[in-house]
Amino acid sequence: MLKRMLFIFLSFGVIAFAANVGDLTNVKTLKVDRGLTEAGKSCVECHAKLTPGHVNDWKESRHGHVGVSCIDCHSVKKDSPMAAQNCEGIKGTEIFVSSLVSPKTCERCHPNEVKEFQQSGHARAALQIQAKEGMISLMEYFEGRNHPDLKHSPEATGCMQCHGSIIKLGKDKRPTAETWPNYGIGNVYPDGGVGNCKSCHSGHKFSIEEARKPAACASCHLGPDHPDIEIYNNSMHGHIFNSEGSTWKYDSAPDAWEPGDYRAPTCATCHMSGIGNLKTTHNVSKRLKWNVWMPISKTREGGYETAVKDFENGKITKGNALAGNPDGSAVARTEMEQVCVSCHTTTHTKNFFNMADKHVELYNTYATDAKKMIDELTKKGLMHKDKWSDKAFKIWYHLWHHEGRRMRQGALMGAPDYAHWHGVFEVQQDIRELKIIYEKRIKSGKIEE
Amino acid sequence: MLKRMLFIFLSFGVIAFAANVGDLTNVKTLKVDRGLTEAGKSCVECHAKLTPGHVNDWKESRHGHVGVSCIDCHSVKKDSPMAAQNCEGIKGTEIFVSSLVSPKTCERCHPNEVKEFQQSGHARAALQIQAKEGMISLMEYFEGRNHPDLKHSPEATGCMQCHGSIIKLGKDKRPTAETWPNYGIGNVYPDGGVGNCKSCHSGHKFSIEEARKPAACASCHLGPDHPDIEIYNNSMHGHIFNSEGSTWKYDSAPDAWEPGDYRAPTCATCHMSGIGNLKTTHNVSKRLKWNVWMPISKTREGGYETAVKDFENGKITKGNALAGNPDGSAVARTEMEQVCVSCHTTTHTKNFFNMADKHVELYNTYATDAKKMIDELTKKGLMHKDKWSDKAFKIWYHLWHHEGRRMRQGALMGAPDYAHWHGVFEVQQDIRELKIIYEKRIKSGKIEE
Amino acid sequence: MLKRMLFIFLSFGVIAFAANVGDLTNVKTLKVDRGLTEAGKSCVECHAKLTPGHVNDWKESRHGHVGVSCIDCHSVKKDSPMAAQNCEGIKGTEIFVSSLVSPKTCERCHPNEVKEFQQSGHARAALQIQAKEGMISLMEYFEGRNHPDLKHSPEATGCMQCHGSIIKLGKDKRPTAETWPNYGIGNVYPDGGVGNCKSCHSGHKFSIEEARKPAACASCHLGPDHPDIEIYNNSMHGHIFNSEGSTWKYDSAPDAWEPGDYRAPTCATCHMSGIGNLKTTHNVSKRLKWNVWMPISKTREGGYETAVKDFENGKITKGNALAGNPDGSAVARTEMEQVCVSCHTTTHTKNFFNMADKHVELYNTYATDAKKMIDELTKKGLMHKDKWSDKAFKIWYHLWHHEGRRMRQGALMGAPDYAHWHGVFEVQQDIRELKIIYEKRIKSGKIEE
Repeated sequence: MLKRMLFIFLSFGVIAFAANVGDLTNVKTLKVDRGLTEAGKSCVECHAKLTPGHVNDWKESRHGHVGVSCIDCHSVKKDSPMAAQNCEGIKGTEIFVSSLVSPKTCERCHPNEVKEFQQSGHARAALQIQAKEGMISLMEYFEGRNHPDLKHSPEATGCMQCHGSIIKLGKDKRPTAETWPNYGIGNVYPDGGVGNCKSCHSGHKFSIEEARKPAACASCHLGPDHPDIEIYNNSMHGHIFNSEGSTWKYDSAPDAWEPGDYRAPTCATCHMSGIGNLKTTHNVSKRLKWNVWMPISKTREGGYETAVKDFENGKITKGNALAGNPDGSAVARTEMEQVCVSCHTTTHTKNFFNMADKHVELYNTYATDAKKMIDELTKKGLMHKDKWSDKAFKIWYHLWHHEGRRMRQGALMGAPDYAHWHGVFEVQQDIRELKIIYEKRIKSGKIEE
Repeated sequence: MLKRMLFIFLSFGVIAFAANVGDLTNVKTLKVDRGLTEAGKSCVECHAKLTPGHVNDWKESRHGHVGVSCIDCHSVKKDSPMAAQNCEGIKGTEIFVSSLVSPKTCERCHPNEVKEFQQSGHARAALQIQAKEGMISLMEYFEGRNHPDLKHSPEATGCMQCHGSIIKLGKDKRPTAETWPNYGIGNVYPDGGVGNCKSCHSGHKFSIEEARKPAACASCHLGPDHPDIEIYNNSMHGHIFNSEGSTWKYDSAPDAWEPGDYRAPTCATCHMSGIGNLKTTHNVSKRLKWNVWMPISKTREGGYETAVKDFENGKITKGNALAGNPDGSAVARTEMEQVCVSCHTTTHTKNFFNMADKHVELYNTYATDAKKMIDELTKKGLMHKDKWSDKAFKIWYHLWHHEGRRMRQGALMGAPDYAHWHGVFEVQQDIRELKIIYEKRIKSGKIEE
Repeated sequence: MLKRMLFIFLSFGVIAFAANVGDLTNVKTLKVDRGLTEAGKSCVECHAKLTPGHVNDWKESRHGHVGVSCIDCHSVKKDSPMAAQNCEGIKGTEIFVSSLVSPKTCERCHPNEVKEFQQSGHARAALQIQAKEGMISLMEYFEGRNHPDLKHSPEATGCMQCHGSIIKLGKDKRPTAETWPNYGIGNVYPDGGVGNCKSCHSGHKFSIEEARKPAACASCHLGPDHPDIEIYNNSMHGHIFNSEGSTWKYDSAPDAWEPGDYRAPTCATCHMSGIGNLKTTHNVSKRLKWNVWMPISKTREGGYETAVKDFENGKITKGNALAGNPDGSAVARTEMEQVCVSCHTTTHTKNFFNMADKHVELYNTYATDAKKMIDELTKKGLMHKDKWSDKAFKIWYHLWHHEGRRMRQGALMGAPDYAHWHGVFEVQQDIRELKIIYEKRIKSGKIEE
């Protein structure tokens, strides 16, 4: 009963604190109760032995310093679908905990961050996969060979680790191996929360410094289909960061992290941070003019991401692939340019985007032509039934999903090797190969081999 | 004569010191004679001018601080096969030196480390190549074109640099260009020593800090066939290391390097370090459940590595590919899990390996099917005589040696891009391509083209 | 008028300073006038608000500390082709500025560095592209699809970013989007200056530390055709740098940056820095024995680079691909070996280059055979008219331009994965594929498909 009261008190304490922080227009008094409760202390003491990594992280975290401890984030109401007493120390008490912590918990103190996040493309990461027939069949049928016991491993060891999953619990309230652990950014939790703050602010330190460094993005934004860290390293920005970034200042307050703290932008600087008059946002789509991962690029005119809202209404949808700035792509670009001009002249900035946009448009001419060929072959029954055995399909897939993304993203982020060698240089070869196959099939009326 | 005596004294001094260090169960008195002898000093003084890099490294080494200098490791007995007097300063004296330093020297002070190393897969790195017909023919015939003068360059500039070589000496007692220099981990020295401590603890600093950082492994464990550093960078562990690893503590004593010194494991943490109740080991195979580099993965049930023992008995063998934990694969896995649970819950750990193991097993189904096709084609005479001109052979080789390893290692080390895009995504395409060729050859009874 | 006088005074002041620095044989008095002029101050004050990144960089630069400010580098004579008054603060005055700063400005204070640079292969980077029909047609026709509006994007977002461009100005004296911004090292400025110091010493800090770190080279020297940073990371040098390079000393004076300041060389150490008796040079070709980017490697016997001189004489030429050490390739190699022996024995050094040279020669046998096949097919009309649709052409191109460079550069810089897996392992497969196509075409007298 005492524990129960302490728990309630703590929860309210945290909420009150959050409300103060959220309201940025008034003078604030951040009254913080720093002492740990008895319940809080006993978690810490026991886990210092059980999982010392957790506790060591937490000790140096801001959470630790303001007195937010294990129980404040892991305790849940008894009727939560995640409520469990798997921990010896609380068995038989009124305290229920969940090893999973959903954004519904984070938003108690960080409401703006969670809200902005859920308006961004990041929020659709897991739901999008589930809603796409092609994706599920790639993972389970083509890769997993429809094997009764093994077909889930491609998703569990692969896609879900960055995209996240719709986390399912077993009978013991423990998450299933097919859906967890992962560090995917779009996780859907059993309590309906969507998102994963820990993808960038890794537990149990949850630091702002980490999320501002390229490494925070690099463990997902890499590889053949979106080599963003490779692109960054290829850019002059990455060149400067890699030569001296270890000496920069990463813990300035939001909206106050400005040139001088750093000499070149990191991922966060351009896509999220307040700089000049621009406000910090957790909506990473907000400053984007284009969608550069689609087969054919379009400008982002669709307002906010909708996948989370759809999910709340009981639907799993792909969300809004053209979400971005609620005021449209021109405003998005203007916001991004505001970042650039902190360190570059207007001519530099305008010229840069002028040619980068042309490279995206040049890509679109390739993709449009390629798609036309694929569509015609499909219509005429000239594509293999097993699509991953079809040369034409594979070329098309790689053209847009791999080299085409590299071409576009490389241009927009100043990475010549990706705009060119890993991009257009391969795309121009792809379309030539595709055309030879296309003409052969059209001429012969059959699929080669 | 004086020099001779000093040398003997020094050698014994070092051995006595080693014996003390080796015996960890008793109270120790580490009596160290720190003064350099005259002979020792003169090496240092001369080489400070000749090869300042060596001496600068040594100055900041622990060796330097305890008074172990050039001569203590480089002097050898007169009857050593490596004994030479190529250095002006010792010509005509009773001192003989070798520029090569074999593990037989290192083990005088570090007997446990050398012993554990020689029980590991690392110890077979060079011998394995020499014992494999396919490997030698790839390097000399297919790549080196059997060219009388040039055929050794692929091995010397390539494989040997990581695997090591059986080092041969010329008439002047200097190592031949075909076999040295290299930084290969499995070097076989003319005195019979096997292994290369400098692969990870680079000379002449030989630091423990270096070997605990991912960079120590990264110069060999990279690339298409075992992209372990790329896998690490893709994992959440690498994400955290890359964002703040430069600030961690790497010089804690063995068995005392624990979470808190670091926030995420490096390669060494999981594969070698003492953590919790687990003891430090230089047997990197000891915590491995699977062999994940073989064409078809099997669990490691075979005890210790045997290549060094075979070599001592006069045979060059591939050693024991299924060596690992002497108590078998289940114990190996239990040991590895002990590392994980320092920072993760048991559910997290169990779930993670559950799906990773399935991914290895899923790979095995691919490899088994592919091998069956290759075996049948071979039996029916439907494979090219020049195997590297054969499409089917090349697909099979890449399937297991390149993408198949990425698929398995990516899953087991939490790297979604390697488990998936560079792994199973390619493997599923490989087998489809192979099947098309297979069916064509079986049907037509001949090799295409 | 006052401003005009201040400007002239400043310019002369800088030139006088340069003359003192340039003359290294006499005792020097570096009389520096540190105060900023009124004109200088007003630039800084205004740009601290407009482009804070520029000013923050400059503040911590050596330029800033010796009183060289915006106006000293950006002001140009009224009759300069780049002279403009696009900045509000100088409209109507006698001050003209250029946002572009050409090496003609840099050489006022750094004459040796600019001269050495222009004798190196770096100086031909942009002019070479312009002089090569194949390159322009790759970029504009094959990649840019001859699209009236979009055909320049491959060059502008790709090649030019590292190679540089012949910068053109619009009517408003602002550079055109097709030619700028870029960080290409071979930029040709409207005033005839060639080169780009900022490629390695990024603006507006222009630091010597940055240029000595691998990251300075890495944003261009990467990727499929010259993966020099990947090669470095694969080498023992990179291994050591990556494990502790963040703690080394990078600001030692030129010719005084020696082992002890670092434990392993960076790119700059071997290719540019003074070490032992070797003098610092900005001619990166000077210590190179081979040209390893050509289709067939030759030794560099041709003295200095000539592209800049040709350009001054009104011609755009490819320059001298075999420029290097004016005393020939043997001297170049001797110079490079002087770097190596600071940390390695002579045997180590000789053996290393012995096998690396053989690997280059082995490559040459491949390239010679491949070229012979391509030449014969061309002569017999057995190559596609659209060359990027031709399998044989594509294999040949990749053989020499991609995998063949990796094979050679990997061997010469101690990177086994590039010498082997990304190098000769692929080259041996390339030539086998090429041979199959060649024989088919010769036999059938027609192009397949």
